[in-house]
This record gives sequence, C-alpha cells and structure tokens, in this order.
Amino acid sequence: MDIKETMQAIGRRARAASRRLATASTAEKNAALQAIADAIRREKAALLTANAADVAAARAAGLEPAMLDRLTLTEKGVDNMAEGVEQVAKLPDPIGEMGEFKFRPSGIQVGKMRVPLGVIGIIYEARPNVTADAAALCLKSGNAAILRGGSEAIRCNQAIAALVKEGLEVAGLPGDCVQVIETTDRAAVGELITMREFVDVIVPRGGKGLIARLLAESRVPMIQHLDGNCHVYLDEDADPNKALKIVENAKTQRYGTCNTAESLLVDRSVAAMLLPPIAHMLTAKGVEIRGCAETCAIVPNAVPASEDDYYAEFLAPIISVKVVSGIDEAIAHINQYSSKHTEAIVTDNHPKAMRFLREVDSASVMVNASTRFADGFEYGLGAEIGISTDKIHARGPVGLEGLTSQKWVVLGDGHVRG
Amino acid sequence: MDIKETMQAIGRRARAASRRLATASTAEKNAALQAIADAIRREKAALLTANAADVAAARAAGLEPAMLDRLTLTEKGVDNMAEGVEQVAKLPDPIGEMGEFKFRPSGIQVGKMRVPLGVIGIIYEARPNVTADAAALCLKSGNAAILRGGSEAIRCNQAIAALVKEGLEVAGLPGDCVQVIETTDRAAVGELITMREFVDVIVPRGGKGLIARLLAESRVPMIQHLDGNCHVYLDEDADPNKALKIVENAKTQRYGTCNTAESLLVDRSVAAMLLPPIAHMLTAKGVEIRGCAETCAIVPNAVPASEDDYYAEFLAPIISVKVVSGIDEAIAHINQYSSKHTEAIVTDNHPKAMRFLREVDSASVMVNASTRFADGFEYGLGAEIGISTDKIHARGPVGLEGLTSQKWVVLGDGHVRG
Repeated sequence: MDIKETMQAIGRRARAASRRLATASTAEKNAALQAIADAIRREKAALLTANAADVAAARAAGLEPAMLDRLTLTEKGVDNMAEGVEQVAKLPDPIGEMGEFKFRPSGIQVGKMRVPLGVIGIIYEARPNVTADAAALCLKSGNAAILRGGSEAIRCNQAIAALVKEGLEVAGLPGDCVQVIETTDRAAVGELITMREFVDVIVPRGGKGLIARLLAESRVPMIQHLDGNCHVYLDEDADPNKALKIVENAKTQRYGTCNTAESLLVDRSVAAMLLPPIAHMLTAKGVEIRGCAETCAIVPNAVPASEDDYYAEFLAPIISVKVVSGIDEAIAHINQYSSKHTEAIVTDNHPKAMRFLREVDSASVMVNASTRFADGFEYGLGAEIGISTDKIHARGPVGLEGLTSQKWVVLGDGHVRG
Repeated sequence: MDIKETMQAIGRRARAASRRLATASTAEKNAALQAIADAIRREKAALLTANAADVAAARAAGLEPAMLDRLTLTEKGVDNMAEGVEQVAKLPDPIGEMGEFKFRPSGIQVGKMRVPLGVIGIIYEARPNVTADAAALCLKSGNAAILRGGSEAIRCNQAIAALVKEGLEVAGLPGDCVQVIETTDRAAVGELITMREFVDVIVPRGGKGLIARLLAESRVPMIQHLDGNCHVYLDEDADPNKALKIVENAKTQRYGTCNTAESLLVDRSVAAMLLPPIAHMLTAKGVEIRGCAETCAIVPNAVPASEDDYYAEFLAPIISVKVVSGIDEAIAHINQYSSKHTEAIVTDNHPKAMRFLREVDSASVMVNASTRFADGFEYGLGAEIGISTDKIHARGPVGLEGLTSQKWVVLGDGHVRG
C-alpha cells in the first residue's frame, strides 16, 4: 500500500470508531482511561526501554541537547503520564449535555446538545507524553484521534499506542479510537492534513516552522497556536508594587513558555518612577533589556531595541521595553506587534482597565495579573491540548470543550411550521 | 492596479475599519443601521431603476427565468430590505458582553468576553437583498464586511452599497466597514478567499457548485452550507396524527428550502398502517414517491427509488421513502445518507427520542416537530446569515452570535502565578 492508501485506511477506521465513541457512556470512557493509566504503570520498564532506544538513535543522529532533553522519559515522567490520564477521567464529561432550552412562540422548545467534533488529527514534535495526553483528551471528549508524533520518538510512541489500544478494548471500545501513525514518512502528514472526509480538525503542537508549514498546506480546519509575544502595560495609575511583582512573574518565572511576557510598555508619566526598580530586578536576574530611546535614557544598562525586537518571541532572558504616551498608544502598539496570545494591564483605574479588556484583540486579556496565568489548568479547564491564537472555534487555552461542538435540539409534540 | 492589488487594498481598508468597529458602541451601530434603513426607503426609486437595468441585462444575456425571478426587486422587496435592517438594529448587541466568571484557587477571576471575528467575506448569488441583510448582520456583530454579490446584480448591489456607506458615515463610523467588490472579475473571489491576513472567515451563500469551488480553493476558514437532505423517521411508537401532520409540513410546506424533508423512513412494524394515509396526502399534493421494495408493495403509485435518490436534495415535489427495521437502522441510514442539516423522529417513546437526539449526527435534531423549523428566526436568533452544516465554530442556523468569538478575561489584584 502506498502512503495515500495507508492514510485513507487509517481515516476510514477512525471515522467508523468515532461513530461508536460519540455515543459511548461516561462510564465506558472512564473505564478505558483507567485501563490505559494502569497499563502505562504496569509497562513502565518497557516504555523506558523503548524511550532509551529512541534517545540512543537520536543521539547517534546528532540531535541537539535541548531536543534530546525533551525526548527523554524518566520514571517520574511515566508516573506523570499515567496520572494525567487519570485526571482526564475525573473531569466532567461534556458530551451529551443539553441546555439553553427556550420555548419559542411556535410552541417548540429549542436548545443545544454538546457533541464531539468527530476525528481529530494531532501532529506533535518530540515529547512522548503528548501521545498519552492527547489520546486521553480526545477519548474523553468522544473524538477519535489520529496521532502523528515526531519520528525521534517513534518507538516510545508506538509502545504507548499499544497500551492505549489495550485500554480501549478492555473497556469494550474500538481500538481504532486512537491510532498512532506508524510510518515516519513525512508524506503521511501531507495526507493527514488534506483528507477532509475523514478528519474534522487538526491540532498541531510544535514549533513555529511546523505550524507555518501546516497552515500553508492544510485543507482541514486547524486549532492553531503560532507564538506568544505577550505584553505587560504599566498604566499611569499602576500600583508600583503590583507592577514590579507582575513584571517579575510574567517575565522571569519561566523563560521558555508561550505565556511569558516578552515586551513591557510603560506610560511616559510614570516611566521614570517605575522603570528603575523593575530594571534593577530584571538585571539582577540576568535579563537583557532592549529599550526605546526613552527607556535607554532611564535605564543605563538597556541596549537599543530594533523594530524586530518588538515583534520577537524571545523565549529567553530578554525583554523589549517601550515608553508610550498612554493607553491609546499602548493598545495600538499591542494590536500591531502582539501575536494575540495574552496581554496584561497594570492599573488601578477602572475605565482604563475596561478599555484595555475590550480593545486589546488577544485570546486572553488581563487586569493586574501575570500573563503566566494563561493556561488551561489555571483557567480551570482541567487539562489543555493547546492554546489557540486563532479566533474561529476555539480561542486561548483549549480543553475538552474546545474539542466539542453543539448541535441544536428541537422538542415538539406534533408541532409544524405555520 | 491589478486584481490582487485591488483586493489587498480592500482587505487593508477592511482590517483598519474592523478595529474601529470592534469598539463601536451599540448606539453608534444602531444609528448606522437606522440611517441605512432610512436611506434605502428614501432611494427606493433609484434602487428599482438600478435593479431594472440588472434584470434587462440579465434577460438579454439569456439568464433562466428562475434566476431572473430571484434577481428581481419589487417595491415590497425594498420595504422588506429596510425593515430587515431595522430588525437587526433591535436585536441585543452581543459584543463586549462578559460572563462565566469564576474564582480560581490562585485568586484570579476568569471569565469570557464576546468579541467580533474581525473581517467577514460574504460571497453570494443573484438576490440583491443579501447585500443589505449581510451588511446589517456584520455591522451589528462588530465585523467589517467585504461583500461579493452575483455579477447579474452588480448595479443594484452598488446602489445599496452606497447607501450603506452613507449610513455608516452619518453615524460616525468608517464607510469601509462594509465594502462591495465593484469588479465582476471572478479572480477577485480567488483573492478574497485566500488573503488570510485580511479576512477572518468566509460565508458563502449560494448553490452547491459555488460552495464546492470555494471549499476546494479557500485558505480562509468558511462557515459553509452545502445542502439539506433532511429526514423524518416514523418510529414504531409514532402517533399517527402527529406523523401525518409533520410529514405534510416537512415535505410540502415549501419544496425549495434547505430544511424541507427529502426522505421518509418508517419502522416496518407500522409501515402498513402509517404509509397509506401519508401516501394519499402526498399524492393529492402532487408529490412523487420514490420507495424501497416494501414501500412500493404498500403504496401502489410509488416508483422504485435508486441508491442516488436516498442521497438527493430534490428541492422539488419528490420524496424518497424507506422501510427500516427500527431505530438502529434509521439512525445508521441517516448518518450515512444525510447532509447533516436537520432530521426529525416522530415517536411517543422517550428513550428512543433521546437516542435519536444523541446519536444522529446533524446540525439540528428534532422530536415530534417539522424539519421546517430549522431556521434562525424560528430558533430565536432574530436573523440568520446562513445555516452551517459544518461542525467547527458555528453549526446550524448562524445568527449574530455565530459571527462572534470569545476571548478570555482575567481579573486580578496584583496576582502572580506560584
């Protein structure tokens, strides 16, 4: 069979499995999740062996240390994986939930029921835990999944896939509810993202390069996450203590996450007061400050920022800083330079807080809180499959609900349209 | 300027206008809508003259009578257009509405705010009233619109566009909030559906051919509506009077609408009882019955149905009929043959009603009600821009809310992540 035929066969099996899974009871889905978690714990040694083989092959192939690090699975990592699956079992089941019923003048009642999307294709890079995470979220939300992990993790992914299949079958559900693509041929991705008849949505989890390629080629709707160039704006009415604390947390708690602040905007009237202590804190933590001319005049160790710096997602101890004339310029700057992920204002002024919330066009907007809160767990979603910077369908952290849709339900008693 | 440059310029203007419109107050938007309605009424004679020129040109070009009929605007049509715009002004403004706030263990409050999608491209065929309808819905939902109507209606569409622009400017909003593409060059559509940087979603309103072409070529998410092959299933426990009444309304109230029933399924155990009076009613109304072998045995004037008949959206006085072994076969048949628009079960049995609602994978599912109810006005949306048979983002009738998205709002008081 060629790649196209192989992928079409996978798609057909996923579609068939999705019909059964869409009507599975909560108990069946939770039994499958528990069986998967049990199997992962039971086969810990085998998973570590498969992962060790992946790591050895990747090292021999000259994979860079940071990637090797992400690829490596530890004993604790396997425990976390099993626990993650159990946590998804404990989440409320969104599927089949009805609500919003209203009587209409015609006498019918109209409401909605939450339903799965159908078949979800997930394309991800090295980390093997994504296989178990994504399988669990798709399963609980009633969606069949087709998973395509990085080729470096293929042995471990296949080992996890076998355990997922086992768990599904123990619970009486089709093993095809979760399929892991076995070939490492890149053409398989090309098929996956174009077979509209079998795949309802693509969720990419990976770097910018991967997502840009998928965006250019995909014929299936995507829940995409490009990058996180998040801003903190310190307003004229910012409380200096809150400002310092929030910038510290937003920039320095972790440098490599997409909800880390990459750019700081400060109102001109308070810049000379707010910037020195913040710059002192950042410098003490080894953060490089790239500022506008006014920033450089206030902060002696700042270096001049280029235009590109204001667009950059550094993912590193670097921050761009700009002095602005007020909230209008701050909002205009953010809507121009931001990646529409998460932005925060620090202010004690209510009308300005409300304007910021309304006018900043990003997936998450915050008042007096760190951008680091933009996360499915912090928002109470229980888990997240990604963070969407798109506006269609799902925006911001995507949990179980983001993997569902709603159909209309009409209840009558012989009603006809007049 | 070539077509690409022209369209890019339109896109850039739409994006700029959308930023202003996203933060417009309800009063501003309603003032614009009222000014548009007033202008339409004032210029009734000019609109009818422009339409008459369109109709004359189309007749000279040999357009078929049904299309000429759809193209023709009457005095009453102009009044309805103005009234439709006023009705949209009366709908509640969804934009900026906040809700669903919950305190999280970290101390932050997390909720959501409803926001526009941004720029909506609408591609439609002959009917000139769509220009005013679509402009009004996009405007009220805070979205800039780029409208591309059928080339046959170009004079009337441009006349309406000028009045929309006037109304926007009277209310102090940018005239570019609604732009009508002036060229009839088909390449303009190709640009519109691929300029992701300027267009957030495409809403096609037209025949299957148009939508299939757009689906194949679009690089922008679409709220699509392919066709309506709607089913009515008469269960073993159907009340015969409700069954007769619902089939009559669903099939014969109007033949050309997408929520008209095209296929009737009947449980074998009640087929001999239910089918004769229904066939009598249908035949009396001139509806051709295309049935399975069992149907033909019960209904003497039925003709044998082909496999294709079960997939067909007839949009005509024709119905396909199939006798099935029960609810399992009915659901399986529908999930196989339906276009996922609207399906109804007639039954007095509660568990079977619930199974039908849950297991039928269509945008609207109904119990003891006519499929003809699947409509934005009947559902209480106030207006509709189309009916989506897709699952991503919007499903079923799409009103103002379907043209919006939600962003996350986080309220803190100096909160940082631990």
